[in-house]
Amino acid sequence: MTDAMPVPFTVDDFAARMRRAARAADDAGLAGLVVTPGPDLAYLTGYVPAAITERLTMLVVPADGDPSLVVPRLERPDAERAAGAPIVRLIDWMDGDDPYGVAAPQLGSGRYAMSDSAWAMHLLGLQGRLETTSYVSMTTALPMLRAVKDDDELERLAAAGAAADAAYGDILRVRFAGRTEAEVAADLAAFLIAHGHSQVDFTLVGSGPNGANPHHEHGDRVIEDGDMVVLDFGGLKLGYGSDTTRTVHVGEPTDEERTVHELVVRAQQAGFDAVRPGVACQEIDRVARGVIADAGYGEYFIHRVGHGIGLTTHEPPYMVEGEETPLEPGMCFSIEPGIYLPDRFGVRIEDIVTVTADGGRRLNTTPREMAIVH
Amino acid sequence: MTDAMPVPFTVDDFAARMRRAARAADDAGLAGLVVTPGPDLAYLTGYVPAAITERLTMLVVPADGDPSLVVPRLERPDAERAAGAPIVRLIDWMDGDDPYGVAAPQLGSGRYAMSDSAWAMHLLGLQGRLETTSYVSMTTALPMLRAVKDDDELERLAAAGAAADAAYGDILRVRFAGRTEAEVAADLAAFLIAHGHSQVDFTLVGSGPNGANPHHEHGDRVIEDGDMVVLDFGGLKLGYGSDTTRTVHVGEPTDEERTVHELVVRAQQAGFDAVRPGVACQEIDRVARGVIADAGYGEYFIHRVGHGIGLTTHEPPYMVEGEETPLEPGMCFSIEPGIYLPDRFGVRIEDIVTVTADGGRRLNTTPREMAIVH
Repeated sequence: MTDAMPVPFTVDDFAARMRRAARAADDAGLAGLVVTPGPDLAYLTGYVPAAITERLTMLVVPADGDPSLVVPRLERPDAERAAGAPIVRLIDWMDGDDPYGVAAPQLGSGRYAMSDSAWAMHLLGLQGRLETTSYVSMTTALPMLRAVKDDDELERLAAAGAAADAAYGDILRVRFAGRTEAEVAADLAAFLIAHGHSQVDFTLVGSGPNGANPHHEHGDRVIEDGDMVVLDFGGLKLGYGSDTTRTVHVGEPTDEERTVHELVVRAQQAGFDAVRPGVACQEIDRVARGVIADAGYGEYFIHRVGHGIGLTTHEPPYMVEGEETPLEPGMCFSIEPGIYLPDRFGVRIEDIVTVTADGGRRLNTTPREMAIVH
Repeated sequence: MTDAMPVPFTVDDFAARMRRAARAADDAGLAGLVVTPGPDLAYLTGYVPAAITERLTMLVVPADGDPSLVVPRLERPDAERAAGAPIVRLIDWMDGDDPYGVAAPQLGSGRYAMSDSAWAMHLLGLQGRLETTSYVSMTTALPMLRAVKDDDELERLAAAGAAADAAYGDILRVRFAGRTEAEVAADLAAFLIAHGHSQVDFTLVGSGPNGANPHHEHGDRVIEDGDMVVLDFGGLKLGYGSDTTRTVHVGEPTDEERTVHELVVRAQQAGFDAVRPGVACQEIDRVARGVIADAGYGEYFIHRVGHGIGLTTHEPPYMVEGEETPLEPGMCFSIEPGIYLPDRFGVRIEDIVTVTADGGRRLNTTPREMAIVH
């Protein structure tokens, strides 16, 4: 909950993560990991290229052996400066080379877990080179690679959550009626930045009927007295994600609006109360969904109840039917049930939660009850 | 060169592009295209999802047949609003469904060109479902899908280029000596926005020895009198990219600095003079590289000479050794030779150029001669 900068991750942190990843690959019967720019690479090496482009950058972590990082020559100086660089062998390639010809020798036979967001172009390039090597997505093979956060990561996630909560406190004091969704969204973004976010990833403002589309961003609709307004916002602070949703009302709500809102708060609380080590992820979805279905609104809850969060705002574990992975202490994810009444209004309530030894801890702590704005 | 908003692309524009893509696939012996969120999808349908996530969104354009767009149900309302939506069949899937089970029936046997940046996770998901279907990257199979720009696109690219040029005019009037690279980079970003960019993609400021790393972004180094400073900046205006580089000098340059700068200007001009329909892309690289090599600096020019630009700032065609595609009128790309003297300084000069019936036309028109700043 501190605003002070946590201690930067060290080469020892990255070495420990790399060893854990190699061991997880070995345990899963994999030959290793193939990691491309994005959160997996940041997690294992601290290296975040300036841009993710068509130029191949690829970390290979063998289950048994030393990791190597293939980079375009002109990005080598950047890669050398990454905190984890001392524990990888850097191999560069130059424009005009076949980068897959350079990367392929780093791989052996067998099955590798590959970063979800690796470009298909790069996977196809490797597949064309290596006939006895196969691939499986990280989420399928090693979904929990980044799922269990250590204390330093939890500190960052808590700081991001506290900053988002402070932004929510601020937004309750702005004018809603008579302004557009886009204007309120801009306020939210400014508040997130003011509270230390380096990056705003989304500021959803769904007023009135727009709230019934759970992924409506924001638009030119002028918010009116009597509107329900879904506010879902987050981004990165200290490299880690925030993501919280509150649904507010402009002026006095109707009885139905109040009932639906209370139902969603109750579903969210039920999901939270179900959190403890050993419980399957899908159970959190089932419990929250059950509350809504029992009240007769089941068909209006049209998405899973949650997603993991860490270096990204959407990552495993997913709280969704079919996900049987048991919760472990240190996992962090959203619980965000919603009810969407087409052409009328929507309600969603979302907190980030981390699993503790005996339950859950909320990383968002603003009141979940309906706030009245003006 | 107008600042007025061009006419938005219409459903007819998207229908024509879709037909051309299907015909190109057919001509290349492909069964069709598999397109995921990003520039290919924006080009063919106008649909730009709010975020690119693990949730599968996938357009299938058969070489012979009607296109279909698979979307997560909660993003369906957004997809329905895309200008190209009327010409695709929308198929949605819901959290908990297997999205590949929904997408696979849209594909037949044979070989499909797939968007370069499609997530490996999604490619593996399809590969696991369909045994007689194979894939090849868009850049390998249909590199020219978006390469030839129509008049409306050229108008947008020219507007983006003119805005970047205006930002360069502005930056020449700011203070360099005694300020950090990051401060000058922030000025550049503000100028791009002031001149109508919706998004800043990069503002590279490489002063003194930092200029010798062609992908150095910007840092805390304080710029000094006597520094060479590489300024490489761009982003999106009206949905299309800008990208230009000028190398300026703080105070009076040495003879060597002047010589190296003039050599790069000359190499850039030679590359530009070689532009005409029918010339192979690699020829542009060879001609510019030849000028630098002949002067004895060949080993210090460590990247290809250019890349295409359009809905993205890096796309085919690439001006690189081995790229034999002939230039066609309407293609747009950078010509950006550079010389990088390790630990000393770097020089790069870059313009976006479009191919005309009888040569090339620069979309950046600021002086390429070394500007002296203070």
